[in-house]
This record gives sequence, structure tokens and C-alpha cells, in this order.
Amino acid sequence: MPTYTPPLRDMQFVLNELLQVPQALKALPAHAETDADTISAVLEEGGKFAAEVLFPLNATGDQQGCHWDRDTHAVKTPDGFKQAFAQFVAGGWPALSCDPQYGGQGLPIVVNQCFYEMLNSANQAWTMYPGLTHGAYECLHAHGTPEQQALFLPKLTSGEWTATMCLTEAHCGTDLGLLRTKAEPQADGSYKLTGNKIFISSGDHDFVSNIVHLVLARLPDAPVGSKGISLFVVSKHVLDGQGQLGAPNGIYCSGLEHKMGINGSATCQMTLDGAVGHLVGQPHKGLAAMFVMMNAARIGVGMQSLGLTEVAYQNALAYAKERIQSRSLSGVKTPEKPADSILVHPDVRKMLLTAKAYAEGGRALSLHCALLIDQQLNHPDEQVRADASEEVAMLTPIVKAFLTDNGWTATSACLQVLGGHGFIREWGMEQYVRDARINMIYEGTNTIQSLDLLGRKVLGNQGATLKKWGQRITVLVAEEAGNEDMAAFVQPLAKLGQQMTAFTQEIGMKALGNADEVGGAAVDYMRVAGHLVFAYFWARMAQVAQRQLAAGNRDPFYQAKLQTARFYFAKLLPETASLMQTARNGVDVLMDTEAALA
Amino acid sequence: MPTYTPPLRDMQFVLNELLQVPQALKALPAHAETDADTISAVLEEGGKFAAEVLFPLNATGDQQGCHWDRDTHAVKTPDGFKQAFAQFVAGGWPALSCDPQYGGQGLPIVVNQCFYEMLNSANQAWTMYPGLTHGAYECLHAHGTPEQQALFLPKLTSGEWTATMCLTEAHCGTDLGLLRTKAEPQADGSYKLTGNKIFISSGDHDFVSNIVHLVLARLPDAPVGSKGISLFVVSKHVLDGQGQLGAPNGIYCSGLEHKMGINGSATCQMTLDGAVGHLVGQPHKGLAAMFVMMNAARIGVGMQSLGLTEVAYQNALAYAKERIQSRSLSGVKTPEKPADSILVHPDVRKMLLTAKAYAEGGRALSLHCALLIDQQLNHPDEQVRADASEEVAMLTPIVKAFLTDNGWTATSACLQVLGGHGFIREWGMEQYVRDARINMIYEGTNTIQSLDLLGRKVLGNQGATLKKWGQRITVLVAEEAGNEDMAAFVQPLAKLGQQMTAFTQEIGMKALGNADEVGGAAVDYMRVAGHLVFAYFWARMAQVAQRQLAAGNRDPFYQAKLQTARFYFAKLLPETASLMQTARNGVDVLMDTEAALA
Repeated sequence: MPTYTPPLRDMQFVLNELLQVPQALKALPAHAETDADTISAVLEEGGKFAAEVLFPLNATGDQQGCHWDRDTHAVKTPDGFKQAFAQFVAGGWPALSCDPQYGGQGLPIVVNQCFYEMLNSANQAWTMYPGLTHGAYECLHAHGTPEQQALFLPKLTSGEWTATMCLTEAHCGTDLGLLRTKAEPQADGSYKLTGNKIFISSGDHDFVSNIVHLVLARLPDAPVGSKGISLFVVSKHVLDGQGQLGAPNGIYCSGLEHKMGINGSATCQMTLDGAVGHLVGQPHKGLAAMFVMMNAARIGVGMQSLGLTEVAYQNALAYAKERIQSRSLSGVKTPEKPADSILVHPDVRKMLLTAKAYAEGGRALSLHCALLIDQQLNHPDEQVRADASEEVAMLTPIVKAFLTDNGWTATSACLQVLGGHGFIREWGMEQYVRDARINMIYEGTNTIQSLDLLGRKVLGNQGATLKKWGQRITVLVAEEAGNEDMAAFVQPLAKLGQQMTAFTQEIGMKALGNADEVGGAAVDYMRVAGHLVFAYFWARMAQVAQRQLAAGNRDPFYQAKLQTARFYFAKLLPETASLMQTARNGVDVLMDTEAALA
Repeated sequence: MPTYTPPLRDMQFVLNELLQVPQALKALPAHAETDADTISAVLEEGGKFAAEVLFPLNATGDQQGCHWDRDTHAVKTPDGFKQAFAQFVAGGWPALSCDPQYGGQGLPIVVNQCFYEMLNSANQAWTMYPGLTHGAYECLHAHGTPEQQALFLPKLTSGEWTATMCLTEAHCGTDLGLLRTKAEPQADGSYKLTGNKIFISSGDHDFVSNIVHLVLARLPDAPVGSKGISLFVVSKHVLDGQGQLGAPNGIYCSGLEHKMGINGSATCQMTLDGAVGHLVGQPHKGLAAMFVMMNAARIGVGMQSLGLTEVAYQNALAYAKERIQSRSLSGVKTPEKPADSILVHPDVRKMLLTAKAYAEGGRALSLHCALLIDQQLNHPDEQVRADASEEVAMLTPIVKAFLTDNGWTATSACLQVLGGHGFIREWGMEQYVRDARINMIYEGTNTIQSLDLLGRKVLGNQGATLKKWGQRITVLVAEEAGNEDMAAFVQPLAKLGQQMTAFTQEIGMKALGNADEVGGAAVDYMRVAGHLVFAYFWARMAQVAQRQLAAGNRDPFYQAKLQTARFYFAKLLPETASLMQTARNGVDVLMDTEAALA
């Protein structure tokens, strides 16, 4: 019943007009040839794959879920998922941003992220399989031995095999320092791994012949806690020296989770029973090796909610236009019909615009971050690489937490636009809400993201990175100082920038006295920071649109962009007033609650 | 996996210490004998039924859902549902607040609402069956002919039959004026009804031998729109004069909806194919007749989310206490364990306290409203009845919309406390979130409630009812003017009261110029009003607790109440700052969006 149209025009706006990605890529030798036309052509084809192949499998995948065979330990995915992956492989899509050395197409991350937004709009559950594979690819690319790279990377690039990341265990949650899986060294230099992992996405499935598991485990001499964790690569099938598949290795799926959403994604309990593995990177440095791709992975989770926000918006808007019910409060709008469309109601418009503003703001921010990762990896100037790295480290928890919180708000608002139909499965909207819920949890809960942002990325260097970032705002505000048409955007942005400085200092001072103040303020702080960054990008988008209109361009796209920007500043940004107030009210009301939480 | 303990202590606090319900009931001849001990005994037994009979069926009911037989049109409910209803009937629970004239126990609505909170905590889906029946009972009690009352009310009171309310149709949604079901008069004074209804809760099921449908339909001479709707009673089986069941009537379930939640509740598409019905009340006055029980029904929906908030809170708190993971930012709290409990983290406490404060505030407000309905129905003094009626009319949309929005926020926060486990079905938390979502939609969406509050109940008499209500705040603030221990509660309450007056006037003025300003501000306004009312009840609860503590009472219950009150004022109430700002930013940014919403 729902439909999906890839938002290519808005992607092109962000890539070409807002971020000027093609120009930025010219400075990166690896991507200097990637021009706007190439990107557009790739995204157009990628959008077709998403809309035509994946999207039709989204509802059925949710209804069928995955099935686990108790005897063989094999997982069967929903109808069509395997065939869609074969088409994905045949189209060369796994290779899109992989290293040409291993058969990749070498396109920038920023293009891959656009592609993944569309995959997630079409079918978040299915997209987990290649998404996790790509994360493992990056980890092996950064930390594998040359032999490991030669063995695994070509097959992950081609899509002949897929991969997983086996991190947490039942008693751990976020605290991986507690994990117990053991790795015992063998005479031949390999290790035997024994333990149990949970929440392993794509731990088993029926897409391909082999699965490459990256597994965190402890060596016998490992220090306790997070400094005693090593990373291993464990193949589902034992491999000979040429990468030919041998007998099953001692790692298998011992059960599936039944979940609120992303039901087409196989969330596996994995048992390691003397599985043969090989060390990746240095002993006891497994967490650091695993976290190398964490920025990209967390931005990837933000893109999941961005994708859901976009598709939910499209369907809620279509419904609101067609649904004829009641009359406008300000007078009948369509007297020829028995009722007006519900789009006449201000609150319906508010719910729709909330989703639209969050989607388009999120697209701008996350693609900005993806470009930073490309610069961090590929810019010839070390200082540019370092600056990009510093900036993306600060923005990543915002993309992860702010976009996924917003995705929850937005998909729920879109559901509400459909009234009772929003609650009914066949309309598709309730699945977007259920799927969106996990994004606030995995890859580090949004509370963890907020602590990372405030504690480490902001207060960790006394606000230096934030201050540097604020110069972007200063420049923009100065540019538009005399422009009345831009006042509605740059004035609240400037004001929030000033408030943010004082707000950060205040929390920093409090935290010196009581470290729990960071934990008490972090989530509020994260949302204020999210709005500061969104306000900057919305002002920049308004600037681009305003200049087009001033130059006589009549494309309604720019009118739409300005209207959405106005909405954002009037109706979403003011959330910051309450957030700063609640954060300022401190942590004591949370901690002095022994009786209340007894 | 989840557990449920009826919150009897907090109910007793609200009933006996805060609202002084037993004293208030003494003024109502129908309930003068209902003392605190009676109420406690009923609620204790009711809580046992909820926790022991219904709660164990909640997860299985969700998983199994209802099943419809295409050939017989019969609906089968989940395992155990029918037996639970038989126990409900055997215990006399359907009769709890029914009229003794028809076999009822005649207990006040306020007791029935406490009971329903517990039923909803235990199993919202199951509770839909008796809940809707009771709504239909009230409608027939108010508008049925003596013959209809004699025929139907005893069987609805005993639970021998159940009932439905057949209102909307596929193209109507909230706009019942569009409905098309026809009622043709017959020579014998009956009517033949033909049409299709959707979203009919309990439209068919296997609990009892007969179902009494209240159906909205149009007479042949009906004016168009909402002034041409009449109400009919249609029995599933044709009845003879003595109420003996005859042949099936021409009304049957033609399909079930597959939903996001409340899967154990049969949400039916109903076909009327020449069904024999009888007029209830006056021709063309069906909507008014149906709306007689709307206040109680809408408060009932608030109680659904209250119930879910309470049970989600209980389980999230238990999890947080037991879950050992990571260390406190302010230093290790349990060095003897490998990690601290997650309860040491400020944001975990904030999520828990959000649910607790919303549950306890919601309980105070909704039971206050239930008592008002008892006064409206039974007080000997006409002026008291009129005042109660006026007040409950204003507060009802707040209970419905504010409590259900809060329930969504709170159940989602509780899910987040469980991290990844929150997303997994066996932990039970995700079901509370899914079930809670419908409460924001049915019985009039929360947007509709907000319009009802601002447009009709507040601006409809130039704020007179609101002003009258504000005198409660003035009295409380004056009472505690010199009490430093109460300053943290009464000062923000007084401030918000003043802000509310100015805020209301401002929106009222704007609305004179543009009626859409009401629609643009209504949802923000509803939440501000909700906080005003919650702030009043939280200050009152703090007052009761403060006085107990000042008198030397060491019961930690009162400490807990004060701590939760402090949390509410510091961390939840400040939402009003942003809400007033977004409302003031007006409706133009919503309506001048033709390009954006093209």
C-alpha cells in the first residue's frame, strides 16, 4: 500500500548546491574524477534498485520474519530477500565504496551514504545484511594482516560472502569490558574461541555460502575489563589457504530474537564452541580496532532513521492530500466536495512539516559528515585530515542520537496523520515506527551518544572543538548581516550560538564539582547541540534558496526549501528553551531519589 | 517475563489523602455508604483479578491475536481470553458501577476507574471487551426506552452479553457526518440497517452468546451531515419479546484488522445487511445520544495509557536495579561487583522518574475527573452537578490527550531503560509501547481533543471555565505562601498560572483574526494546560506529603512523593516554555507552505 520515490532532487541539492561535494572531491586524489553527473547516475540507478527491488519486500519481510532451524542451526530469511541480495551483488552494489585494490568501485563514502539512505527507506531490515558486512570490511581493511585482507576483502567486496560483528554478550549490554568469550592460542598460530554472543545481526542467513565473523574475545592472559579484549576473524566454514570452504567451523546460530521491528533482519544468538579464529590487530587492542569504523557505523544508523523519516513523510503527505474529511476551521476550502482534505488542518501540516524538516536537515548534516570522513581518509593535507577527523568525531554522536530521536518523533507523527489507519499494518506506517525504535538503541544507546558528545567530545577539550565549529556560524551570520530576507534564519541561529557557549561553560563548571552533572545534562545537551547544527544547515539551505529566488529562479523547490526552513525555526528549534532549562535544573533531583526509586 | 503489582498504596493515597473521596461520596446519596474500607477491599480483589487472571494472558494474547473464520464470520479470541471473561462475570465485575435497578453493584465511577487502570496495566487488549460494553450500557441507560433498558441492561450488567459501538466507516474517520449506513423504517416500528462499519472493537468474539451493537445510521429523510444521524440498537441474534435468542440478525464481522498493538482485541469490519434494529433516542439525534458517555470513555482511554505507564515503569525499575553494567561517572558505587547497577546513571533515573511522575500525576487527575462524573450524576445540588459537569468537560480532553501522549513518551522511555532487551518481545516492554500508540488516536485523535479543549472548552466561553479552575491554584498558593518547604512547588505553579492567563488571551485575540490560529496552537496549548493541571496536583500531593513528614511520619512513601514532585517541577514542567513559544510563533508558518507540501 505505501509507495517510495527516491528523493534524488533533494540529494542533488545537498550534494551539489549546499555542500558542493563535487568540488570538495577534486581535492581528494582518490575521488577527483567523481563528478556530479557520475554521482547522479549512480544514485538514480541505486534509487531504482531500492524502490523496485527492496521496497516491495519490506512489508512481507516484516510479516514473515526470519526462521531458525533447531536441528541445522540455519536461518531462513523472508521470501525474496535472498534473490534481492543476488541482484544487489549482480549490480555490483556491495563494491560501491570499496577499495579498487580488492575489486571495489572506490566511490566516496558520501555517495555510499546517499545510497544507503534509499536502501533504508525501502527496507531497513534487508539493509542490515550488506550494512554490517561493509562495517566488517572497513575493520579488516584497517587492521587485517595482508593475508587476511587478501583472503576476505575481495569476497566481501564482490558480495560472495557477508560479514558480522560479534560484540556483546547477554550480561554486557554496552559494557563490553564484561565480556567472557575466550580465545585459546593454538600451536599453529590460530585460536580456539568459546563463548556466547547475542544481538548478532546477520549472524546466519541463506544469502551466501560463507559468513565472516569479527569476534571480540579474551586471551588467557588478558587484563580484566575493556583493556583485555582482542579481535578475531572467524569464518563460518573453515578455509584452506586458497579460501576454499571446508567443514563448518565451531560457530553457529543458537537462536533468533523476536523483536518489535526489523523483523526481516536475523538477530542471532551465536554460540562459539571451539571455533577456529585468527587474531586481527594487536592482542588486547580489539575494542580500538573494532571502533575504527564506529563513526561511519553510527552515521549509518542516523541514515537508517533518515530513510524511515523520508518514506514515512512521503506516505503521510500522500494520505493527507487524498483524505477528505471535515472542514477547515477558517472556512470551506473545497465546496464541490463533501469535505476538505485533511491537509487544511494546521496540526496535520505541522506533523508533516516536522517530518520533512527533520528529514531534510538530517540529510544535510549526515552528508556533511560523510564528506568529512572522505576527507579524513583521503585528503593529501594532514591538517585537513586532522580537522575533518576532529569535526566528525564531535558530530557523529549528534547524527546518531539526534537523527534517531527525530526519526521516532517523525514516524510517529506521520502515523498520527493517518489516524486509525496509521495503526493498521496494511498501511505500512506502523512498521516504520517499529523499525525506527531500534535505531535509538543499537551502536550505543542515545544516552551513551549524549555522554560521548558532552563528556568526551565537548568538555574533553574544554569546548575547543565546539568553539571551532561555532566559527562556521559566525561566518554565516556575518555574511547575511544586512540581508532582511535572511534575518528570520540567522538571528535565531546567532542567538542559539551565544546561548550554547554560556550553556556549555555552565555545565562544564558544574561537572567539575560533580561528575554526575554530565550524565544529568547530557541528553538535553545533545538535543540542543543537534538543533544548533540543524539551525546552521537550515540557515545555509535557506541562503542557497534565497539566492536562487533573488536571481529570478522560479523553481518551486526553492520556495519549498524556504518555507520548510521558516517552519523549522518557528516550530522545532524552540525546543531548545526547555532543554536548556531542564539541564540547568541539575542532577540532584535525579540522584536524591532513593525513596522514589526504591 | 514482566511482572505487575497493583499500585494499591498510591491509589489509596490519591483516593483518601489527596481527593478525600470517601468524604466526597457522603454527599452523594447513591454512594454515601461507600467508605474507604469498602473501596480498598474492592480494589484489592480487583487487583488480584488483574494481576493473576489477566496479566498472564497479555503476551500470549498479543502473539496469537484474533482469528476470523471467512465462512462462519466468527471471531476466535486468544487462548484464555474467553475463560478470563467467564471469571470476570463470575466475580460480578461487569456490575461494579452499574445501576442496582438492573442488578448492578452501584459503586461510584471513581472506583470503577481505579479498577480499569489495573485491568489496563494487566491487559489492555482484553479490557477493550468489557470497556466498550460498559460504554454502550451507559448510552442505553441514558437514552434507551424502558423496554430496551429492561431487555438489555440486566444482561450487560451481568456480563451475559457484551456490546459494541458501531460508529465510523471507511471514508469517515472522525467526521461521522459523512457516514452512509442506512436505516429503513419497517411496518412494525423496527428498522432495516444496511452498510459497512470499520474499527469496531469487539464486533465479534467467542466470549458470550449475544452481542448488542449500538449503530449510527441515517434515516431516509435525514438531513446531510452530522445532524442527520440516528442511533439504533442491533442485536447479533434476533430477539423475541422475552429476550430469547433467535436466528442470526443481518450483522456480522466481515474481516479483522491487523494492527500495531492491542492484538488480542478484535477490531472488526462489520457488515449490516438488512439487520433489524430499533431506534434509540430521537431521530437525527444519534450523535448527541452517543456522546453522552464520551467524557467517561475518553477518561477511560487516559486510564489505558495510565495503566501501561504504571506497568512499564514497574518493569523498567526492576530491570534497572538488577542490571549490572558499567560504573557510575561519580565513582564506583558497588566495588564488590564487576559493575554498578544502571540505576547509578542519571539519565536512567530520569527516564524512570518521567514514567513515575506521569503515572502518579495522571492517576491524581483522572481520579479527580472520575469523582466529578460521580458528582455530576449523583449530587443532590443542581449547582454542584452543573459545576462538576463544566469542570469535567474541560478536563476530559486533557486526560485523554495529555495522558496518552505521556504514556507514549513514558513507555518508550521505559523500553530505552532496557537497552537492546527493550526491543525484544519476550521482555514485554515493546508491547506496552505498541499498545500505547492507539490511545493517541481512538475516541477522537489527540489533535481533535486539543481543538475541543482550546476552541470549545476554553475560548468557547472566553476562558471563564479555565479562570474558575485557576482559583484552585490561587487558593493553594495562598495556603502555602509562607512555607519555604513548599516554595519549589507553589512558585512555579503560580508562575505558570499567570503565564497561562496571558497565553490564553493572546491566542484568543489571534483567533478572532484567523480561526486557523486555534488549530495551529491547539496541540501546544493542550500540553501547557496538561502541565498546569499536573503541576497543581503535584503541588497538592507534595503538600499532603510535606504535612505528613512535618508531623513526624517516617513512611518513605511520603519522601518518595516529594522526590517525585521535585523531579516533575524540575524536569518535566519546563516543557511549557518551548510550547508557549512555538504556539506564539503562529499558524502562518504552517499554512504558507503550498510549495513545501505540494
